[in-house]
Amino acid sequence: MNNFQLHMPTKILFGEGQIAAISQEIPQGAKVLILYGGGSIMKNGVYAQVKEALTGFDVQEFGGIEANPTYDTLMKAVELIRAEKLDFLLAVGGGSVIDGTKFVAAAVNYKGDPWEILTKGGASVTNALPFGSVLTLPATGSEMNCGSVISRPSIGAKLAFLSPLCFPKFSVLDPTSTYSLPTRQVANGVVDAFVHTIEQYLTYPVNAPIQDRFAEGIFLTLIEEGPKALANPLDYGTRANIMWTATLALNGLIGAGVPQDWATHMLGHELTALHGLDHAQTLAIILPALMTIKQDTKHAKLLQFANRVWGITKGTDEEKIAEAIRKTRDFFEKMGNKTRLSDYDISEESIPKLIAKLKEHGMTALGENQDITLEVSEDILRLAL
Amino acid sequence: MNNFQLHMPTKILFGEGQIAAISQEIPQGAKVLILYGGGSIMKNGVYAQVKEALTGFDVQEFGGIEANPTYDTLMKAVELIRAEKLDFLLAVGGGSVIDGTKFVAAAVNYKGDPWEILTKGGASVTNALPFGSVLTLPATGSEMNCGSVISRPSIGAKLAFLSPLCFPKFSVLDPTSTYSLPTRQVANGVVDAFVHTIEQYLTYPVNAPIQDRFAEGIFLTLIEEGPKALANPLDYGTRANIMWTATLALNGLIGAGVPQDWATHMLGHELTALHGLDHAQTLAIILPALMTIKQDTKHAKLLQFANRVWGITKGTDEEKIAEAIRKTRDFFEKMGNKTRLSDYDISEESIPKLIAKLKEHGMTALGENQDITLEVSEDILRLAL
Repeated sequence: MNNFQLHMPTKILFGEGQIAAISQEIPQGAKVLILYGGGSIMKNGVYAQVKEALTGFDVQEFGGIEANPTYDTLMKAVELIRAEKLDFLLAVGGGSVIDGTKFVAAAVNYKGDPWEILTKGGASVTNALPFGSVLTLPATGSEMNCGSVISRPSIGAKLAFLSPLCFPKFSVLDPTSTYSLPTRQVANGVVDAFVHTIEQYLTYPVNAPIQDRFAEGIFLTLIEEGPKALANPLDYGTRANIMWTATLALNGLIGAGVPQDWATHMLGHELTALHGLDHAQTLAIILPALMTIKQDTKHAKLLQFANRVWGITKGTDEEKIAEAIRKTRDFFEKMGNKTRLSDYDISEESIPKLIAKLKEHGMTALGENQDITLEVSEDILRLAL
Repeated sequence: MNNFQLHMPTKILFGEGQIAAISQEIPQGAKVLILYGGGSIMKNGVYAQVKEALTGFDVQEFGGIEANPTYDTLMKAVELIRAEKLDFLLAVGGGSVIDGTKFVAAAVNYKGDPWEILTKGGASVTNALPFGSVLTLPATGSEMNCGSVISRPSIGAKLAFLSPLCFPKFSVLDPTSTYSLPTRQVANGVVDAFVHTIEQYLTYPVNAPIQDRFAEGIFLTLIEEGPKALANPLDYGTRANIMWTATLALNGLIGAGVPQDWATHMLGHELTALHGLDHAQTLAIILPALMTIKQDTKHAKLLQFANRVWGITKGTDEEKIAEAIRKTRDFFEKMGNKTRLSDYDISEESIPKLIAKLKEHGMTALGENQDITLEVSEDILRLAL
């Protein structure tokens, strides 16, 4: 395997009733700011549990963090924290709220213009407020990693940063906190976690058998549990299995020591930006086409994926690979995500615009071999029509 | 799955040449104590690499930590640290050196008699010196957990403690640091990691599919890589795969949210204490007998183990289980560990002595259901003759 450094310092509190345990994880006497999104936590009981758990702490609140958290909104939280001298943050929500809280944590004591955190990158962060999270939407893995994506619509920017100072101190994963999610969001989370795993698995072999086995374990679990979530949305066990598996798909573990791709995500981001599709929808469209176009360099891992994940043992190599791609596509469709651009009324007229955006964003050499040029991206998009 | 709390804060630096990176992980200006064992690190080049990496730090050394680290030896290190006001520890060695360093870290500023750390347990630890490790022997998982076992021969005691303050800040896993190990120790490490995984897997189902898949991934990797280590001891890839897999077998990950057993280890410890067998030898003896005796309560997981790990699909349930136990026994034998008490000239005359020791140590209700009574332990030992 390749050399790696792996750090997963976030303490996980998993299971029904674990919100009550946060009082043990926050320093006594801390002045806490609860950050949240559109207010769904008021309806599903999570807010009440958090407030109850924080009895005895000095607590303030900041709501309204958007689905794609914006710099302007988050800087209002930064001002509040500075004015009130708050010293511990608690993100209550999904990946957007946690991503936003990471930026706020890094910005409060930042020397200089906090926008630099995104333009200069996480290395510019030398101090961050401590924070924890209560997760209500499993998908992004933000609850156990140190990455964050922030938007600034006024200048058309959406940028990411990673800082080792921005791991949550703890994250509560209570599956019952996800009960009020629409089934579509749960299904999207399954597809997102599946593709996160693909991006860290479907490259070329580097003799890393345990990373492969763990990734295949995530695939098999999502394939088994995903349809159960559609059939029986409020089953605790299914929600629990999806929630923990989605975290494991992007906490650094399965990607340590192996090549990574991420081209599907990059192409997908442009589809969301241009056509407003759900993130999971874009992945479901791009991945089957990318697997088909890149089966040359991904040949060995595609065969392993066909055999170990889909149990395909018959046919030529090409037939096995085609069958694995077909089964992957069927799985996405079964999870409610159509897999063709035309399913979303996107025609080939969009392709030049998407390619122009990829070029504008410097996405001209994607994939584990940097060989997904703009020409290859165009082939992928055409095949996805 | 069951509720759980999981914390894995140790940063892993994995791969050839990573010892050089420790200078980035130790606070500048730290006064460092290197702790080590019998001096093998002088011969295999690890010591020289560590010293080179610590250029510019104030460094002292403490050698002679035993294979079963003793309180008396470790207290000498504590005295040295107090006298010289050292403030960062670096364990260089295997599980014993790391376990010993954890105790030293907790003892230096302990208010009261440090032996209480073992008699009162890790909850009595309110402060510990920071420490890192450079691992030279993969097996125990001590490099990424917060557990430690310390002996005090003068009063016949061997006790464990766990403290959340005693996670290594970082651990270097450089597979080349294990090149000088005798093949027998590498093989023993494979068996030890296999049985660590069994103890967290072979219980009863709690609808925890991702934990099961990860554990099965560890089994399959050890089954594939173990024999390669015997055939080609100095192959980097094999050493790397065994080293990382052994860490993953006991860093908390696969045991989070599932029942655990540990009876094989408890019975094995008495065999080591009474007859001086290697730890892995004792596990190879006890486990096949325990699997046979406890196939009633472990029935469902034994069938899953037979199918997913050993690929057994034919026969009655009882035949499948018998075949899985046979294959497990064969694997241990292939790894150089005989699996019968009689292979080590231990006869049934020892059994009453072993049972008396289990009783003396309070091991009267072992296993995930606390139903491995002294009578059941005796059945297991008799079957292992």
